[in-house]
Amino acid sequence: MKQPCTVVKIGGNILDDSAALDAFLDAFADLEGAKILIHGGGKIATAVGARLGIEPKYVDGRRITDTPTLELVTMVYGGTINKGLTAALQSRGCNAIGLTGADGNLLHAVKRPVAAVDFGWVGDVRAESVNTGLLNTLLHAGLTPVVAPLTHDGHGRMLNTNADTMASVLARALVPFFEVSLFFCFEKKGVLANPNDDGSAIATLLENDYLQMKTGASLSGGIFPKIDNAFAAVRHGVPRVMIGEALALLNDPDAGTRLLP
Amino acid sequence: MKQPCTVVKIGGNILDDSAALDAFLDAFADLEGAKILIHGGGKIATAVGARLGIEPKYVDGRRITDTPTLELVTMVYGGTINKGLTAALQSRGCNAIGLTGADGNLLHAVKRPVAAVDFGWVGDVRAESVNTGLLNTLLHAGLTPVVAPLTHDGHGRMLNTNADTMASVLARALVPFFEVSLFFCFEKKGVLANPNDDGSAIATLLENDYLQMKTGASLSGGIFPKIDNAFAAVRHGVPRVMIGEALALLNDPDAGTRLLP
Repeated sequence: MKQPCTVVKIGGNILDDSAALDAFLDAFADLEGAKILIHGGGKIATAVGARLGIEPKYVDGRRITDTPTLELVTMVYGGTINKGLTAALQSRGCNAIGLTGADGNLLHAVKRPVAAVDFGWVGDVRAESVNTGLLNTLLHAGLTPVVAPLTHDGHGRMLNTNADTMASVLARALVPFFEVSLFFCFEKKGVLANPNDDGSAIATLLENDYLQMKTGASLSGGIFPKIDNAFAAVRHGVPRVMIGEALALLNDPDAGTRLLP
Repeated sequence: MKQPCTVVKIGGNILDDSAALDAFLDAFADLEGAKILIHGGGKIATAVGARLGIEPKYVDGRRITDTPTLELVTMVYGGTINKGLTAALQSRGCNAIGLTGADGNLLHAVKRPVAAVDFGWVGDVRAESVNTGLLNTLLHAGLTPVVAPLTHDGHGRMLNTNADTMASVLARALVPFFEVSLFFCFEKKGVLANPNDDGSAIATLLENDYLQMKTGASLSGGIFPKIDNAFAAVRHGVPRVMIGEALALLNDPDAGTRLLP
C-alpha cells in the first residue's frame, strides 16, 4: 500500500492574515505523513512592487509578467514568502525545505508562447516535467517541500507560474509513488452552489456538473482556473482532491468540496 | 578513502560582474565531485535597498541588521541572488539547489547577544549546528547546494549571517565525511605580502606568520575576518584551505594562497 502524501496549496487569503497563517501552519505542521506546501503570492508582492515603483501590467485585461515583475516575484515569492514559511514551519518542528522549480530542477517550464497576448516571463508546466526523483529523495528523508510559484526554463531564466497549476502537476506526478490528497485552500468553505450564499458549499462535485455550472454562470468566474486545475488532477488519478477553507480541510477530511470524475 | 568535496565562497566582486560570473559558473559547473557554493551579497542588495528607502545602518562604525535590512537581505540574498545562481547553474547542467540555513534546518544560528553594539538580526553559527545529515543526503543525490548567507533561529526568525563564516563552518562540518577543499574567492590573487602590490600574493601562509602580519599591519584590515574564518577551518581539520581569485583557484589547485596550521 502506498504511503499518504498531502499536497496543500494556500494563497493570499491566508498569507495576508497572520493569525490565520499561524493557525494554518500549526495544523499543517501537525499533519502526519509526507506533505508538500505550495504557496501563492499575496499583498506583500504588490506592496513591495509599489515601493519599488513596479506597476502591475495588464494586456487585454490579463496580468502579464514583464522583466521588473519577474524580478519582483523572484524576490518576494522565492525570498520573503518562501523563507518566511520555511522558518515558521521549522519553528513548529516541521522540517521544511523551501524550493522553486529551479532548485534541484524540481519543475522545468516552457515560456508561454506569444499568441493573442504576450504574457511575458510566464512558465507553462506539465506533470511530466516534475522531478519526482528529487521529491522522493526529499520526502523519504522526512523533509517537507515548501514550493514557491516559480519555475525555470533550463536556460538560466526564472519564470512566473500559477501556484494552483503547480500544485496540480506536483500532485499528479506523485500518484505512482504516494496515495495523494490535494487540497486547494481558499476563503470559501468549498465550491458554492450559489455564489452569493457562503453556506451553500457543495459536498461533492462531478466534472460534468461543473461544466454545466460553468456555462450556466452559477459560479463566480475567478474560481474557474482553480477548479480546472483541480479537475486536471482528478482526471490524472489523484484520488482525493478537495477545495475549501484551509483549517477546515486539515482538521476534517470531509470538509469542503470533493471533486470527483 | 573519502570522496572530495569542494566548498567555494564567492562575494560581490564576482556577483556584480556578469562576465566574471558567467566564467566562474562555467568553471564551477565543470568541477568534478561533490561541491557547495556559498554566496555573499553584492551591489544589488544596496541598489534594491535604496529603491525601497532602506538605508544601511551603522552603530559605532559597524554595520547592523535592523528589521528592514533583514527583510531586504531575505528577499535579495534568499530570492534574487540565490535563485539567479541556481537557475544559471541548472542551465549549465549542474543540479543546483538553493538553500538558506532555514531550509531543511541546514544551519541553525543564535542571535548575536547585545554587548557594546547591538548588531540586530545577526546570527552567530557553530560547525556543530550544521545539519550534516541533510548535506549528505543532498550531495549523495548528486545535488549541489547553493547557500545564501542567511540562517534561522529555530523560532521562526531568519537571521543575517556572514558568508565567509558560513563557508568555514559548512566546510568544517563536512570533514568527517569528505576530503574537503575550501576556496575563499575574492578580487586578489591571494593574501598579499605587500597590500599595495597585487603581484605579491603569498603561496603559503602559516597561522603564526599571519598573526604577526596582523599585528604588524602589513595586511589591509578588510581581509582579516576572511582569513580568520579560513584559519578556523584549517584548525578544525579542513585539509585544503585556499584564498585567491575564483577562476584561478578553480583552474589551478596551486593558485592563490594556501593556509596551513
